[in-house]
Amino acid sequence: DMANTEGSKLWGGRFVGDTDPVMEKFNASIAYDQRMWDADIRGSKAYVKALEKAKLVTADEMNQILQGLDQISDEWSKGVFVVKPGDEDIHTANERRLKELIDAPAGKLHTGRSRNDQVVTDMRLWLRDAISTLTDNSLQLISTMVERAAVEIDVLCPGYTHMQRAQPIRWSHWILSHAVALSRDVDQLQEIKKRVNVLPLGSGAIAGTPFDIDRELLRKELGFDDISLNSMDATGQRDFVVEFLFWASLCLTHLSKMAEDLMLYSTKEFSFVTLSDAYSTGSSLMPQKKNADSLELIRSKAGRVFGRCAGFMMTLKGLPSSYNKDLQEDKEAMFDCYDTVHAVLQVTTGVMSTLKINQSVMEAALSPDMLATDLAYYLVRKGVPFREAHGISGKAVFTAESRNIALNQLTVEDLSAVSPQFESDVSSVWDYRSSVEQYTAPGGTAKSSVAAQVEHMRTWLKKLEQ
Amino acid sequence: DMANTEGSKLWGGRFVGDTDPVMEKFNASIAYDQRMWDADIRGSKAYVKALEKAKLVTADEMNQILQGLDQISDEWSKGVFVVKPGDEDIHTANERRLKELIDAPAGKLHTGRSRNDQVVTDMRLWLRDAISTLTDNSLQLISTMVERAAVEIDVLCPGYTHMQRAQPIRWSHWILSHAVALSRDVDQLQEIKKRVNVLPLGSGAIAGTPFDIDRELLRKELGFDDISLNSMDATGQRDFVVEFLFWASLCLTHLSKMAEDLMLYSTKEFSFVTLSDAYSTGSSLMPQKKNADSLELIRSKAGRVFGRCAGFMMTLKGLPSSYNKDLQEDKEAMFDCYDTVHAVLQVTTGVMSTLKINQSVMEAALSPDMLATDLAYYLVRKGVPFREAHGISGKAVFTAESRNIALNQLTVEDLSAVSPQFESDVSSVWDYRSSVEQYTAPGGTAKSSVAAQVEHMRTWLKKLEQ
Amino acid sequence: DMANTEGSKLWGGRFVGDTDPVMEKFNASIAYDQRMWDADIRGSKAYVKALEKAKLVTADEMNQILQGLDQISDEWSKGVFVVKPGDEDIHTANERRLKELIDAPAGKLHTGRSRNDQVVTDMRLWLRDAISTLTDNSLQLISTMVERAAVEIDVLCPGYTHMQRAQPIRWSHWILSHAVALSRDVDQLQEIKKRVNVLPLGSGAIAGTPFDIDRELLRKELGFDDISLNSMDATGQRDFVVEFLFWASLCLTHLSKMAEDLMLYSTKEFSFVTLSDAYSTGSSLMPQKKNADSLELIRSKAGRVFGRCAGFMMTLKGLPSSYNKDLQEDKEAMFDCYDTVHAVLQVTTGVMSTLKINQSVMEAALSPDMLATDLAYYLVRKGVPFREAHGISGKAVFTAESRNIALNQLTVEDLSAVSPQFESDVSSVWDYRSSVEQYTAPGGTAKSSVAAQVEHMRTWLKKLEQ
Amino acid sequence: DMANTEGSKLWGGRFVGDTDPVMEKFNASIAYDQRMWDADIRGSKAYVKALEKAKLVTADEMNQILQGLDQISDEWSKGVFVVKPGDEDIHTANERRLKELIDAPAGKLHTGRSRNDQVVTDMRLWLRDAISTLTDNSLQLISTMVERAAVEIDVLCPGYTHMQRAQPIRWSHWILSHAVALSRDVDQLQEIKKRVNVLPLGSGAIAGTPFDIDRELLRKELGFDDISLNSMDATGQRDFVVEFLFWASLCLTHLSKMAEDLMLYSTKEFSFVTLSDAYSTGSSLMPQKKNADSLELIRSKAGRVFGRCAGFMMTLKGLPSSYNKDLQEDKEAMFDCYDTVHAVLQVTTGVMSTLKINQSVMEAALSPDMLATDLAYYLVRKGVPFREAHGISGKAVFTAESRNIALNQLTVEDLSAVSPQFESDVSSVWDYRSSVEQYTAPGGTAKSSVAAQVEHMRTWLKKLEQ
Repeated sequence: DMANTEGSKLWGGRFVGDTDPVMEKFNASIAYDQRMWDADIRGSKAYVKALEKAKLVTADEMNQILQGLDQISDEWSKGVFVVKPGDEDIHTANERRLKELIDAPAGKLHTGRSRNDQVVTDMRLWLRDAISTLTDNSLQLISTMVERAAVEIDVLCPGYTHMQRAQPIRWSHWILSHAVALSRDVDQLQEIKKRVNVLPLGSGAIAGTPFDIDRELLRKELGFDDISLNSMDATGQRDFVVEFLFWASLCLTHLSKMAEDLMLYSTKEFSFVTLSDAYSTGSSLMPQKKNADSLELIRSKAGRVFGRCAGFMMTLKGLPSSYNKDLQEDKEAMFDCYDTVHAVLQVTTGVMSTLKINQSVMEAALSPDMLATDLAYYLVRKGVPFREAHGISGKAVFTAESRNIALNQLTVEDLSAVSPQFESDVSSVWDYRSSVEQYTAPGGTAKSSVAAQVEHMRTWLKKLEQ
Repeated sequence: DMANTEGSKLWGGRFVGDTDPVMEKFNASIAYDQRMWDADIRGSKAYVKALEKAKLVTADEMNQILQGLDQISDEWSKGVFVVKPGDEDIHTANERRLKELIDAPAGKLHTGRSRNDQVVTDMRLWLRDAISTLTDNSLQLISTMVERAAVEIDVLCPGYTHMQRAQPIRWSHWILSHAVALSRDVDQLQEIKKRVNVLPLGSGAIAGTPFDIDRELLRKELGFDDISLNSMDATGQRDFVVEFLFWASLCLTHLSKMAEDLMLYSTKEFSFVTLSDAYSTGSSLMPQKKNADSLELIRSKAGRVFGRCAGFMMTLKGLPSSYNKDLQEDKEAMFDCYDTVHAVLQVTTGVMSTLKINQSVMEAALSPDMLATDLAYYLVRKGVPFREAHGISGKAVFTAESRNIALNQLTVEDLSAVSPQFESDVSSVWDYRSSVEQYTAPGGTAKSSVAAQVEHMRTWLKKLEQ
Repeated sequence: DMANTEGSKLWGGRFVGDTDPVMEKFNASIAYDQRMWDADIRGSKAYVKALEKAKLVTADEMNQILQGLDQISDEWSKGVFVVKPGDEDIHTANERRLKELIDAPAGKLHTGRSRNDQVVTDMRLWLRDAISTLTDNSLQLISTMVERAAVEIDVLCPGYTHMQRAQPIRWSHWILSHAVALSRDVDQLQEIKKRVNVLPLGSGAIAGTPFDIDRELLRKELGFDDISLNSMDATGQRDFVVEFLFWASLCLTHLSKMAEDLMLYSTKEFSFVTLSDAYSTGSSLMPQKKNADSLELIRSKAGRVFGRCAGFMMTLKGLPSSYNKDLQEDKEAMFDCYDTVHAVLQVTTGVMSTLKINQSVMEAALSPDMLATDLAYYLVRKGVPFREAHGISGKAVFTAESRNIALNQLTVEDLSAVSPQFESDVSSVWDYRSSVEQYTAPGGTAKSSVAAQVEHMRTWLKKLEQ
Repeated sequence: DMANTEGSKLWGGRFVGDTDPVMEKFNASIAYDQRMWDADIRGSKAYVKALEKAKLVTADEMNQILQGLDQISDEWSKGVFVVKPGDEDIHTANERRLKELIDAPAGKLHTGRSRNDQVVTDMRLWLRDAISTLTDNSLQLISTMVERAAVEIDVLCPGYTHMQRAQPIRWSHWILSHAVALSRDVDQLQEIKKRVNVLPLGSGAIAGTPFDIDRELLRKELGFDDISLNSMDATGQRDFVVEFLFWASLCLTHLSKMAEDLMLYSTKEFSFVTLSDAYSTGSSLMPQKKNADSLELIRSKAGRVFGRCAGFMMTLKGLPSSYNKDLQEDKEAMFDCYDTVHAVLQVTTGVMSTLKINQSVMEAALSPDMLATDLAYYLVRKGVPFREAHGISGKAVFTAESRNIALNQLTVEDLSAVSPQFESDVSSVWDYRSSVEQYTAPGGTAKSSVAAQVEHMRTWLKKLEQ
């Protein structure tokens, strides 16, 4: 039971007062909910079949309604449907048009149905499709990343913690760290889809339907997995929207992290990667500038999308049961989050598939101090407890820094002055490739381990792409 | 230095790669920032005067540019300006059009200016006007409420704490409690306006302007109060937007509170108020329904607007200095919050000016138990310490409840069984009008005190309306 | 690699400067992360077994370490563990104590481990247990509600939409609408648990572990379902915390809705329910007040918990890869959300198991206008298209209101003046019990349908409680 | 009228039921609101003076109460005050103790007062002091930054937009860009202080005070600037808390920006700055690591604090008028934001006063391409329209990049091949100091302009420090 406007007011003779044009606009949702025209028509087509089975319309009336709805669908898809004053929402617009097209039987379509169950059916149908598209977009991005990781597996680069050089890693290990996060997003989205894909139609305004509406028939017609359990809950909750908004937020937080890394790596100072011109822009003032606008936009959108989630959560807080008009905030939030994630995933795929890496710069950025842990492990392997070895290696680092030389420029004598356990074989420590090859345990940065991650992801992708 | 597109690319020969259409759309802001066309043209008109003074354009070139800009302004105001592919933002669109109209001199307009200082100048001009409108809307609402409070000063109703009947108050006291909150919003908005009204133009991309641009001339031309202090800060901060978004959030939280009260009062169970039909709607299913949709929408919008604030705050968190493309999220948030508050204030004014109150129902809802505090005060006035008096009154309440009678139905004997200090004059306690008339201290609910609040607000309104 | 303090500085000889006491306190987490003492010790016990298998400690050293850890565990559980200056976090505190207890072998425990993989292992172990507790709390609440719904199935009350009386429903239908929402929360929490229950240990600081640490052994020892796929992701992500924070937010939004309903129903004006004294409080000023503080607190906590979620999301936005100290914000958020939901679920269970309902008041609140839809359906059953029937019923409502009589006080003559289809059998419409019994479709408010919902929930509970 | 517990229950004989220990703990605020003990006692001391003036206590009773309160104050300040079971909040605790100390007269202190006006008086007193401290902390930080900017005015460094090198700037220009933002925070905080510093005492529970309480006397005693206008608003709003929470959020967003810059500048790749060891920490695993933990913590806290703001805003949304228990969420949020900002400001001051800059590295990072705008300006000064000059300079950049040489390595011949306007004097462009000296307009990066910013800030500081 949502609002309506003058003219063909659905509540007929009840009201005698005038309306305020600001209020009318404030109240109307047609400007954005017309986007669900197809879902609305699909829902009505299924519903009229249930009406016919319940003998509330004749087979002939049903056919007239179905044909009318098909014509309306055609008008929308051709862009010729004309929204008229009084069409406050997509449901009213479609029913008004149906009346124009087939007259009398149109008045029977809404029997036992409320806009409360109708709108939430439309939204679930719409979001189900949207989730499929976003799943595809995500898989395409992940696939691009995984294949890139497979190809560039021999490239080393510094691994950073606290934005400081930590240990040498494989560049592909970095790529996969982000791909793995995105794969969790995809898994979670499939779980959300299950909760989206539940039929609310047949819940009426609050109490259910008083007619012999076969909800199982509706479920099958509309391809839902399940039927809602309680009519008050079905019409008054928007958890499926909230879950989606939050999913979008977490997904874009992942991409904000990847974008931040790439922005760092594409500074002049790092120069690890070069964005394709297609994903860069210039400056209206400075002729030399090439800005990674794509990455900045990706980074920024996490805020936008989370803002939608926060806003809708605040709207929900403290609402009483069942349908309240406050719920009308659901649609713009849902559409905006979808559009944003849809664009971000595509742009990120473009960025990741065209990005150039500067292998020599990456590898030149590896520095001997990044092997200080290896120096400690050298001692551990000689039986020195790690805590002690860590302290000794720290002293070696301090000695080298004091003399303003690199850690590997300390002689065996220098090192053995710090600890007698250092012997001439310590020189074997200073090899970046050997260093990364130590990390063979699952999840580590050794070649075999990274290759196993690639294989794991390929298998996962194959399963999902089915 | 924001992005641009192919064709008339502002950075000319720098790029050779192709662009991705999804990226182009993702990057472009023209769809929404065209709303600032007037501010953009006003800024450019002032700027060309500064260029002329700095001898960077001749007087003749200046005049050509001014005339061209006037023509563009005319096109926008008539709705005939045509946005073309490549017009990625309002600045590019206007400059492109200027070039078409006057050719060569158009190429001099951007001298020493960056889109970084241009866009933030446009936004400040736009928001300054928007704040004036919202101030007017707020004053109209407050004035409506204050005058209503003056007229209905003799109506009593229950005052609630914890949603439970607490003490009798004047209905006007309730109205004024909301008016006072809104007046704080107006005061705060004027403080924000001061911080909005600062000229950033002349800050270039980051370092300032290298030409003899007279920023004081720009300030005067554009009616700013002040000049920005530091060019990096001027181009890289959006605090004025953030402050506005948060202001909108707090203001709508106030209105969500008033809406919640009115929704309670308009339930069948309370029946204190009746909304005008102009601000109510019916149900598509239930013929008897008259829903307070206007109030629900008002209540809901606090969430929407705060979501915009939360989203933009998250976008800002951790950004590095100066202009980053992430800041492009500022405009849609600003526009949406303005539009929302603008509509909400008008609708609320409509609601408050047409609302009917049901005085007899309100006053019938006053019940003797609401005078239990007065019963305690009766004893306090006889010298009983308040804590003791509170306990005695509580026992009287319990006695009445146990017997299932109203508190004022206890006889003097009943009461003196609870405490011997109760005497026959206790009957004077049971008068609601006498009760409220005790609260004469400033801010209280006695008639004189409420009338003083009305006068205070009228004076405040007069000062603001000047 | 998180921070440490002077004295037993883990990084030994590296630093020579002094420290700032404000910074030390700012940096330390021991004040709150000591809560994970048990998880930290369990993790270390598993880890030393893997070290022994990898021959990095001897069986004898392992046993010394295990005994030392058991003693530390004992100290914590008895409340006698003494945190010392320099114990900046739980990991440092436990290792420092171990050194005091067993000396030399303690220095080997951290071999190949980083605080980066240690802390996230502790958190996952802790949260896994917390989720089990919250699942139990939720099931207890749902079970209370379902059994209450079974008992009170014959009680009718008004169903509200837009806070306005809509249609008669069963009181149990209302209870179940909330129970169904909570059951979704439980289902979702089990999905989150799967993502929490993944072993990160063996990921080191960023690159993995360079020793023969058997991660499968660790997984089994610690009861994890799975092993993390990528060491950078494992140490640098907190998705499982974020998911939990958001889960808590949505769950408490559900309870804020139920609390809001109950607050309405417990106003004097509705008087549908009476809270137990155990969940009410009085006023320091007003002797008669009995406030539903428990409900207000429940309603308020949705904000608190979502604030934690919003805060941590903002902290994560734009962070670069792998461990950054910013992640230290994870723990207080997680603990606070757990504590809050834990208390809210218990208090709500108390409220729902002790609440008294006032059946006669509820049923007296049913009014004939709530059957206006039934009046329309009466016509639909006579073949009138619903739209027309809705209009006719609306006119009847208007007629009754104009005459200031109840809808069912219109005579057959009155009604047939509105529409000739009304006949004497229209009187059958005015029966509330008959009205609700129409809603027999799944999810509806007929007795059979509500009973089916009860059965469905009982089955679901049984499955979960196993 | 907030809740209380058994034993000395303030509402005496009203309740007969038992209480639930979980509910008691859930309801109690003493664990955190005891922090306001001093404000609570100051408020009561003022209040008893007003009671004496109103003849509700005798001079002798007043003196007993004042002495009792002084003794309680003494106990709190010495840390010997014992909180007892039943002390649910600081108000109850202090009054309970007063009763123990002076017996009978203690029962008169709460006459005409409610915990509703008492708690909000305490909060306003507490926050007023907190704001003073934060103002001092902020001024100390800003002063440190301004004086540092004065000293290091001759140091140049790259200015970045979009995280890409843009134009040469003075390092002090960067420092001041952040100082200017913080000065806005201080200005705004003073405005908030005015709205905090308003007396609510004398508003009772909702309706005001029925006795001759002289609110002007209370205002003077407690040093408030103003008296609240409406008792319902005074007891039911927490706008001053919300404003403070949001202020803290915006202030920390500013510091998150500065921290992000410094983190970039302290990477090995930039190496512009070196943090003092006092504000860095090491790694438990990697001996060479020196992490800028202080900066990461500063960056992270913006999220935490905004989370508190978002949480409390959500709690407020949709609350009905006047005091509701939900408002109890105000205090923990306020305390946490104060503590966090208090620590962050001090740590940031420490960081900024001990940071070492690496001038030679900063200046070596200036590269000829950063003068491409100057190259365009060279042409502008010869009369070439800027758009055209920008294009020509872009072509020069492209030529240099194609040949893999620096822009200033192009010969005059190379340049004149791009545009004939280039002549031998073009070599004067390639001087970074000359470049920055062009930006003499207010807010620019020329030495005179930066010096003027320093002076402006010094004057502002002097005014504020008074």
